[in-house]
Amino acid sequence: MDNLQNKLRLFAEERDWDNYHTPKNLVMALSGEIGELTEIFQWLNEDESKIENLSIKNIERVKEEIADVFLYLIRLSDKLNIDLIEVANNKIEINKIKYPVDLSKNNAIKYNRRNE
Amino acid sequence: MDNLQNKLRLFAEERDWDNYHTPKNLVMALSGEIGELTEIFQWLNEDESKIENLSIKNIERVKEEIADVFLYLIRLSDKLNIDLIEVANNKIEINKIKYPVDLSKNNAIKYNRRNE
Amino acid sequence: MDNLQNKLRLFAEERDWDNYHTPKNLVMALSGEIGELTEIFQWLNEDESKIENLSIKNIERVKEEIADVFLYLIRLSDKLNIDLIEVANNKIEINKIKYPVDLSKNNAIKYNRRNE
Amino acid sequence: MDNLQNKLRLFAEERDWDNYHTPKNLVMALSGEIGELTEIFQWLNEDESKIENLSIKNIERVKEEIADVFLYLIRLSDKLNIDLIEVANNKIEINKIKYPVDLSKNNAIKYNRRNE
Repeated sequence: MDNLQNKLRLFAEERDWDNYHTPKNLVMALSGEIGELTEIFQWLNEDESKIENLSIKNIERVKEEIADVFLYLIRLSDKLNIDLIEVANNKIEINKIKYPVDLSKNNAIKYNRRNE
Repeated sequence: MDNLQNKLRLFAEERDWDNYHTPKNLVMALSGEIGELTEIFQWLNEDESKIENLSIKNIERVKEEIADVFLYLIRLSDKLNIDLIEVANNKIEINKIKYPVDLSKNNAIKYNRRNE
Repeated sequence: MDNLQNKLRLFAEERDWDNYHTPKNLVMALSGEIGELTEIFQWLNEDESKIENLSIKNIERVKEEIADVFLYLIRLSDKLNIDLIEVANNKIEINKIKYPVDLSKNNAIKYNRRNE
Repeated sequence: MDNLQNKLRLFAEERDWDNYHTPKNLVMALSGEIGELTEIFQWLNEDESKIENLSIKNIERVKEEIADVFLYLIRLSDKLNIDLIEVANNKIEINKIKYPVDLSKNNAIKYNRRNE
């Protein structure tokens, strides 16, 4: 991951693109890439969206869009001095408390609690 | 990263949430989290969005949203047998060819080539 | 619609919010609202997402989010001098040519043509 | 607007696309179109995003993407029996109470209240 972060820094520096990479712009870029990922899945039903049912062509497209999302996420985190692995581990601990096993078990309503 | 992937698997299994985690649904969940990240930055200008100008409160919120995005991205990739590090490295190589240094240097138009 | 546009102009003027309503920011605000709409539907399957199966609570939430999306869309169009009804009618004509009835009939592949 | 709604119904019926147009899928389609709109604005600064500074080419692209967003919004509302004009008017009344003029005046913090 550090390796990817450094590659992306160098990539931006070599092209003088650092000025464009403000957090606001990177959030938009991330959002745009999620839009492209969404377009691949929008007319598929849940079953068709599974790995065993996706066409080879769509798997290739998904790989590329997921890579774009990940690269912008790394870049954004770098610009904000955020350690992705650390905040992810912290969030899992928060979620363990927020969704206790016994109350959450196969419970779509609990699952959607924050939505209710 | 493998560690995070395993934690998320266990987390979903313990709660019987695997059924909800189809790629289609996970893409939507990812998209929803990006929406929350976007809301933090929408009324800030580019300068205000930089790390040195964000409020401590907003930095905390950004960390949490970025963690959510990352966790869903790992979960989605796991469900699709995609190796995040590998596809990201591949994409950087593609981008090197797509945006050659000499043509891309500080060039917003080139930068936006796919948009033009 | 003109009425809504005027109400929104007045609303922003009275609060001195016009400075925040640049097209870039309004696109982000629109995107954030779509994120909230997405969160309501992310764990529902297609059948559960239909009007006859949504809870009253969720219908109320959907109404509010759809209203937010529509209001930002009107505001954005106003700022860009775009006539929503006109561009929508134009786009339908373009789509009629892009997706001819005989080739598109019940054809998910054709439907996804731009994705393939 | 009723006219647009009817045109879209006919458009989908003629192509047997009604099955694809579940609310869940239409929310994803809406989200995908917002992604395309976002991509146009992501590297522009706020000033460059204004109507007087956009290129003719970008204005044309924006018109098309805004039309796509609007068409999917009408289609989604139709499927959910939601009257866009009505819910928009209701939301403006809610917002008037939520953001009183005297407290909100040129106040970015108030503006961002729900984010704070």
